[in-house]
Amino acid sequence: MHLFYEPDIQQRLFLSEEESRHAVKVLRLSTGDTLKIVDGKGFRYEAEIVDPNPKRCSVRIRSVEQEATVRSFSIHLAIAPTKDLDRIEWMLEKCVEVGVDQVSFIRTRRTDERYWKGKSIHLDRLEKIAVSALKQSLKLTMPRVEGLIPWDAFLENLPADRQKLIAHLENEDRQLLKYRATPGGSYVILIGPEGDFTTQEIAEAKEKGFLAVSLGESRLRTETAGLIAVHTLDLLNQ
Amino acid sequence: MHLFYEPDIQQRLFLSEEESRHAVKVLRLSTGDTLKIVDGKGFRYEAEIVDPNPKRCSVRIRSVEQEATVRSFSIHLAIAPTKDLDRIEWMLEKCVEVGVDQVSFIRTRRTDERYWKGKSIHLDRLEKIAVSALKQSLKLTMPRVEGLIPWDAFLENLPADRQKLIAHLENEDRQLLKYRATPGGSYVILIGPEGDFTTQEIAEAKEKGFLAVSLGESRLRTETAGLIAVHTLDLLNQ
Repeated sequence: MHLFYEPDIQQRLFLSEEESRHAVKVLRLSTGDTLKIVDGKGFRYEAEIVDPNPKRCSVRIRSVEQEATVRSFSIHLAIAPTKDLDRIEWMLEKCVEVGVDQVSFIRTRRTDERYWKGKSIHLDRLEKIAVSALKQSLKLTMPRVEGLIPWDAFLENLPADRQKLIAHLENEDRQLLKYRATPGGSYVILIGPEGDFTTQEIAEAKEKGFLAVSLGESRLRTETAGLIAVHTLDLLNQ
Repeated sequence: MHLFYEPDIQQRLFLSEEESRHAVKVLRLSTGDTLKIVDGKGFRYEAEIVDPNPKRCSVRIRSVEQEATVRSFSIHLAIAPTKDLDRIEWMLEKCVEVGVDQVSFIRTRRTDERYWKGKSIHLDRLEKIAVSALKQSLKLTMPRVEGLIPWDAFLENLPADRQKLIAHLENEDRQLLKYRATPGGSYVILIGPEGDFTTQEIAEAKEKGFLAVSLGESRLRTETAGLIAVHTLDLLNQ
């Protein structure tokens, strides 16, 4: 059965223009055909098509199912975007597959936006990638994706109840992430840009309660480090 | 200092044509300039340029350094290539960053080569990607990359001393990989194609001693599963 994404399906009983086109024009679904819809908020709906309008396809909901396993932990990845924006898009896709609750793109002192050639973090595009990964991996909860957030603003506005972790590369005794993080927590993990956080940024994060961690012996690219951090926290809670 | 890859540097004291061009034409290194070379076999050399010939740059080796930490485990990933070959290339890059010893591409019954449009697994191209990831992550040992290997031939020719694991998706009680694999082992882990292994393939693998494992609750794409499996085994040994 085909899967669609509609964040507002409980309020309005039709598909967005894009999903309507996909259902009616591409998949050629028609009146009475059954489809599944996720709202990205933990619910899955089984629905049937009432009016196969290719711009505004109406549906009737037959049944609702709530995500069975609410996770006992949450993962918030805060990462400086890479010079090559494709790498960030790739990483987001993979993080959604593995399972992530929030991804914040942070502007650090060494975030080098000149390489983007006038492009930037496009939240619309990132959301599409996340939706596609959400459907593909049959997850029901859409992560929050935000950015670019200035470094100072990010540090100021963090919820207090999170386990705060920063994976920097400076010489310092850092415990492995898998030992430092406690199972069952709400984590926020900071991953630096190519060239790492500055010494001052690391000090500022520590002042805010961040603990320095290591992802292991390997020197990883920024986007690899982001995914590996998310997977380490997920694995710790398996 | 610039890093070069020369698998035969101990036998012949010059760089390959490609690395010579990179050193002399791109980086404009010249007589007396210092460079680092890895041979992919666990050694790193500090060398100086004797003759900056752009096709055959001669060097003199000043010092040799052996990889300090020989890993107490080894990871062999055997995976069915995806329809989209870019995804396999991406996965190889990330596996090398994290640390992998061998990657075998396997032709399973559901490996669908029609999607490749006449292209196939190009080992030359994959080796270049692995070399680039090797340099980037400062690793000294080059993984072996091979394929496409027919399923039957792969199962027949496996070394006996490996922990054999298969991550399939059929309904069956499968233990999580992180609990099933024993630290300090030589692992070979099988990851199936889009659409999974066939029931018969799973039975054949089990006959050869493979144990069924799960990578967790998430439904992962093939290439994500490959990387996640390698990282899980690496993390188990951290």
